[in-house]
This record gives sequence, C-alpha cells and structure tokens, in this order.
Amino acid sequence: MSVGRISRRGLLGGSGAAVAGVAGGFALSREVEAAGGIDGTTTTYAFRGAHQAGITTPAQDRLHFVALDVTTESREELVALLEEWTAAAERMTRGAGAGPVGPVEGSYLLPPDDTGEAIGLGASGLTLTFGFGPGLFRDGEGRDRFGLADRQPEALRDLPHFPADVLDPRRSYGDLCVQACAQDPQVAVHAVRNLIRIGFGRVSVRWSQLGFGRTSSTSTSQDTPRNLFGFKDGTANVKAEEPAALDEHVWVAPEDDPDASWLAGGTYLAARRINMTMEVWDRQPLGDQEAFIGRAKGSGAPLSGGEEHTAPDFDMPGSNDTTVIAPDAHVRVVHPDAHGGARMLRRGYNFVDGTDDLGGLDAGLFFIAFVRDPRTQFIPVQNAMARNDALMEYLRFTGSALFAVPAGVAEGEHVGHALFS
Amino acid sequence: MSVGRISRRGLLGGSGAAVAGVAGGFALSREVEAAGGIDGTTTTYAFRGAHQAGITTPAQDRLHFVALDVTTESREELVALLEEWTAAAERMTRGAGAGPVGPVEGSYLLPPDDTGEAIGLGASGLTLTFGFGPGLFRDGEGRDRFGLADRQPEALRDLPHFPADVLDPRRSYGDLCVQACAQDPQVAVHAVRNLIRIGFGRVSVRWSQLGFGRTSSTSTSQDTPRNLFGFKDGTANVKAEEPAALDEHVWVAPEDDPDASWLAGGTYLAARRINMTMEVWDRQPLGDQEAFIGRAKGSGAPLSGGEEHTAPDFDMPGSNDTTVIAPDAHVRVVHPDAHGGARMLRRGYNFVDGTDDLGGLDAGLFFIAFVRDPRTQFIPVQNAMARNDALMEYLRFTGSALFAVPAGVAEGEHVGHALFS
Repeated sequence: MSVGRISRRGLLGGSGAAVAGVAGGFALSREVEAAGGIDGTTTTYAFRGAHQAGITTPAQDRLHFVALDVTTESREELVALLEEWTAAAERMTRGAGAGPVGPVEGSYLLPPDDTGEAIGLGASGLTLTFGFGPGLFRDGEGRDRFGLADRQPEALRDLPHFPADVLDPRRSYGDLCVQACAQDPQVAVHAVRNLIRIGFGRVSVRWSQLGFGRTSSTSTSQDTPRNLFGFKDGTANVKAEEPAALDEHVWVAPEDDPDASWLAGGTYLAARRINMTMEVWDRQPLGDQEAFIGRAKGSGAPLSGGEEHTAPDFDMPGSNDTTVIAPDAHVRVVHPDAHGGARMLRRGYNFVDGTDDLGGLDAGLFFIAFVRDPRTQFIPVQNAMARNDALMEYLRFTGSALFAVPAGVAEGEHVGHALFS
Repeated sequence: MSVGRISRRGLLGGSGAAVAGVAGGFALSREVEAAGGIDGTTTTYAFRGAHQAGITTPAQDRLHFVALDVTTESREELVALLEEWTAAAERMTRGAGAGPVGPVEGSYLLPPDDTGEAIGLGASGLTLTFGFGPGLFRDGEGRDRFGLADRQPEALRDLPHFPADVLDPRRSYGDLCVQACAQDPQVAVHAVRNLIRIGFGRVSVRWSQLGFGRTSSTSTSQDTPRNLFGFKDGTANVKAEEPAALDEHVWVAPEDDPDASWLAGGTYLAARRINMTMEVWDRQPLGDQEAFIGRAKGSGAPLSGGEEHTAPDFDMPGSNDTTVIAPDAHVRVVHPDAHGGARMLRRGYNFVDGTDDLGGLDAGLFFIAFVRDPRTQFIPVQNAMARNDALMEYLRFTGSALFAVPAGVAEGEHVGHALFS
C-alpha cells in the first residue's frame, strides 16, 4: 500500500457530501464509499447513526484503543470536550483533518488544529467509538463528580476480580475510552492522538493499546482471522447481518435499566488485555493444541467434524470414556449452550508490546466484546473459563476495563448527548 | 484487506520456482511476483542475493524488529542456529511456513514447526534482515566468545553516549538482530516469533520493537511518508535506484576493514528509539514547527523554496540578519553538505508503545539507518544534532544499538557464512 496522493482535505471536498444522511440499519449500510484507492484507503463510515460505528462495522485490521481519566471537575468543560470530540471525530472519519483549519493551513503564529501525520492517507475505514467508565459517574470515594451518579447504569461497575487476573492498574480502568479502528494504523493513531490533543487540560491518558491484527469477524463478508495461538477465533461471533441477535445480545433496550435509559441503543464494551505464553504454547503437540481449543487448527472445524461453521457436537463419544470435544475444551466452556444462549460481539486484536522479563514477547490478545449486559454475558463466561478452560494455563490477564457505550450520535448532538440532557 | 484464501503452502507450490535464480542488482529486481492478491499480499522478495533484502527493498509499511542475546556458549550451536534461521527465512519470505512440515500438518504428537497465525496471509512483501552486534565477538569482559574476536570490525562497537541519551538498557544493544518488514504486521510478527521459537535454548529476546508506519522511502517509486511530527521525513535518503551512492554510502567494500573482509557487501545498521514529546510539539505554532525542521509542513519543500526534492539554499538571506533556513534547522544540521557529503539509507518507523508516565503517548520514531561506516556517517550526524538541532528539545533517545549486517546469502550458504568460514 503506497501513500495515496489525495489530500485529506481534498477527499473531504470530494466525498463529504455523500456521507451525510446515511441511516441506521446494520453496519454494512454505513459503507458509503469504497471505490478507488488501494486497500480501502478511501473507505469511509458515517460517524452519525442509530448506533455508534466501530461495533458492527466490518472489523478493520488495525486498532488504537485509549482509556483516559477526566482531570477537570467542571461538567461544562466535560460537555464542551464531548462536543469538540464529536466534531473532530466526524471530520476525521470522513478523511479530513481533526480541525476545520487543517494541518498546514491557517496562521503561522498558531499551532495547527491537526497534527499532520495522516495527510494523504485517506479515511482508511476509520471508526471512532466512545465509551464512559464507572469513574465518570462516581470517583473512588463514591462521590458524584458531574451530577451523573443517579444515571450510572447498574451494570457499569469495575469488573470483578477473576482467577488468573494479574492486572496492571496502568493498563486497566478509565473514565472514558476511545476505540479507533482503521485499515491503516497510522490513521487510527492519528485520530487518537488528535483527540488527546483536543482534550489537553481536561483529560489525561490512562493507558493505550495498539492492536495489529483483528481476531474477529463482525460481518459474514469477512473470513475468520487467527489469533497468536494460530487458531481461528470468534467463529460464533454475533455478526452485523443478524439484526435480531444484535437486539438480543448487543444493544441495550430502554427497559433494561430504567435509571439509565440514556443508554438505550448503546451497549457495553468489556476490554481485557490477555497475555499469551506463546513460548510454552508453541511447544505443545498439535493434537494437544487442538484438544485445548476443541477445533482443528487448519480448518477451524469443531473436532466433532464438519466445517468451520458446523455446530459442535459436544456429546459425540470419543475414546477413553470421554467426548471428542473434551470437557475442558475452550469451545465448549465458552459456548452459548453453556451460558443460557448468551452470545457476544467480539472485536479483539492481536498485540505485541515488546519484551517480557522472561526473554519472550509481551504479546497476546487484546479482547474487546460488546454485550447488552456484562452481568449475564461477559462475567459468567469469564468465570467459567477461569474454572474449567484448558487454555487458562497459557493466559495471564494483565488489563481490564468496562465502559458503557452510548447510542449513535444524531445530527446536532454530541457523543453521549442523552446522558447529559 | 481481507484475509486471503490462498494457503501459504499453496503459495509456495505456485511461486516458489519463480523465486530462484534472481540475481543481485538493486532491490527492485528482487520483486519477482506482485500479481494478484490484495495490497501486495502475494508480493515476494527473494531471500538470497548479493545483498540482504530489507535494505534497498522498497520500504514496506510495517516493522517488527528484535534484538537477541546468544545464550549458548557453543560455536557449533550458533552456526546451527544460523543455518536453521536461513532455511526458515527463505521459506517464510516466500510465503511458506517456518518449517518444512507446516502449521497444521505432520504428527499430532509433535509441536507444529510453524505457529500458524500467518496461514492465508501470503508473503506480504516480507523481508528478514539479520545483523551481528558487538557482543557476538566479545562479551562484556572482552573475552572471545566464539572464536570471532579477531574478526570484529573496527567500527562495530557500542555507540558512544550522545547528549540527550536516556537509554533504557532493556531497549538497547544485543548480540543479534532481525529486522522483519512486511505489508502486513501479522506476517512480520509471525516471522520474528518463529525465529525466536527456532532459537529456543540458544538465544533469548533482549528487546523487540513494532513499527506501524514507515518514515522513509528507499525507492524513487515511493512517496515520502510522514513522521509523528507531521512532516515528510528522509527526503534526501539514499535510494535503491542510485547504485553508485549505495556503493559509496551503504555497502562495505573489501578494503574498508581488512580484518573484517567477511563484511564486504554488507553494511552497518544503527537503530535508535527516539521518543518524541508530541504533546509539546503539538502546541508549537506552525511557523515554529517549520523553522525547526527547515521545510514546509505541507509540501516538504525546503523553506528556501521549490518543491520537496529541490535542494535547500542554506545561504538564502531571510529577515532579522539570518538565513531563511535557520542555523539550527534540522535539515541544515543533518544535511550531507554539513558532513562532507555523508549520506545514509534510512528505514525508520513510527511507533506507539502505550503510555508514558506523564499522561501522554509513549511514541516516536524508531530510527534505522544503514551506513557503510557509522564512524563517519552516523556518529558525526548524531553529535551535530545533539549540539545544534532545534528538534532536540522534542526528542529523547531511549534505545540504541549497532549491528554489522553481513552481505547477502548465496545458494548453499547460511546467514553470515563468511564470518564463520
């Protein structure tokens, strides 16, 4: 992929008009321009809509995720920040600069309102998805920070401690989050960096995570990618083309939490930084690896047979008085059948963050799941994994966070408008 | 870019034959297959040749760089490792698995000889470039480790301490290095991870660095990309299409160091992890930013006028009794005119590694330069920057390493064959 020659400002002029007026529905309808360019550099997804983009949007290849703490004590400053972020996000997801002036225009006596490193890169399918953490509602002592405490969703609490959690507080929690996904990592980094810049004096970065390879598909139009265990991951993911399943498993309904009706049309984002002990994994026999997962490494088919998307037969008898899919196989432990039908929309990414203290790579899966209620969908599955999953021997959970992701942004409104009105 | 459907093993069968027999010349001739696929996923560069690939090869978009320490004391084990790495590198750069069996074939009772996460991703223009650090020749006490001490190049010493160096020893030095570049970061990560796996018991990872966006062009066929200051970088780079300049500035000649004639046809790789204080930079007026660099932010043209590739006029008078290009402008301080014509082949990458302690991004430029002699090309330029460069206020050097990069690998030989024979 070469750097394109169309400036981001030029692109705005050319395609901005086409972006307006795209209605909700599921995510594929957000794709308003995919013509021209190389590798989807000109693909744009509308920022405004019934739901936020970056959830059912076909999972882009690259991620930059940031969690921030709010440092201002002023509700007005917080709202002003969300307004400014909304305007900047709408521009950047169209492929334009973060500000109205641009990276190289305007006064030589002022800092540019865009940092410039994405000039010429196109929108690259950028989506920006915003979330609110528990700390936005109450501080560590339970005090109401911004007059929002009585609107805190019941389900929006710090995740409980799970077995195998060795959380680094510098990689966990946060008052706000932004998930930036794009086909070009420099576009995702540029967007996050400019949102941080805009937030100067009102927010500070708590932690930040890059992901280089998606590990889930969110559309039936996508192949299932592979995680760093070398296996296809998230085969049973809720997909954009399943509107009924999205309503059941992803989107918060108005009646779900009457005190937090502002979250209707939104969802919860659970983030978990999962270090994988790859050096140990790589020394396991192929048969053991497949037994731990419960799927064939090549095709992704369940060990009970068929193809990748064939339903696993958990009762199929195997040798040695057990089933073909072992009792502690990952696919069985996390399967919706074991959790009252609960499903998630997963949107995780592989990461490598340098080196660990053991002479290996600090690497693994940055797990992201969108769920309608973490108490019934995410937490029980995580607990079941901790109790029973053969994979746990190869996992260490080093980061954890939960955010409420408000519904999409309507014209004239800002991110999270309903929460503040 | 979606995950392709061509298996890496299938690709090997289809294109492996076309790879053989490609001769030296400059890097573009290495491109033996660029047809089909999306985003160059099927682009392959021959591993063997007069020079190692990954130097003059048109700079790929993504980087995974690893520095390793040798833990064995056996020369035979070290040579065996280089032989195994050579075989694996040749396979992986063709788009095949790391081992002859493959990620999902062979015995269920044995670990696979490939970790599997790159199944279906194609070669993606992967290059693997190997280097030898000073520690391979003598340990910290000056002892000859592998019978190589008398072949250590005079120029291969730990880089001196430079002003503004705040080096993290966990991000510096190393006995061996591998630079993996590819269009798809998962392909680069997969390659490094498998080389580490193959090295188990003989090497341990010292440090590892991902880069998400190239900051240099190594071919006139490429646009000049932008660093995280938002500026075009490396405009004056030595390019693949300049064979005379490559001979003068990049490739070591046999007469350069008679005791290290094994390095003829090779080069030196200087790596510097440069943290950029982006939050401070972003608050500087556009005019100041351009004055610090000496170029226009939009076009990349020198402030003395023209276009990006116009030669800067360092004498052009400006206002206030000084020149248009300030005495401390980066472009002046590092320009070949200030260093007896010395040029470098730069091949750096932007990075973001999470968060720093100040509530900002741990981000910057992972600088890589290939030079014929670091003593006359890299070190003087670095010292001049430290003394005079307006940019220094925004830079902190947190990692540093120097490696000798042997010549290309001929048929029947392994990486660094001449050093050990």
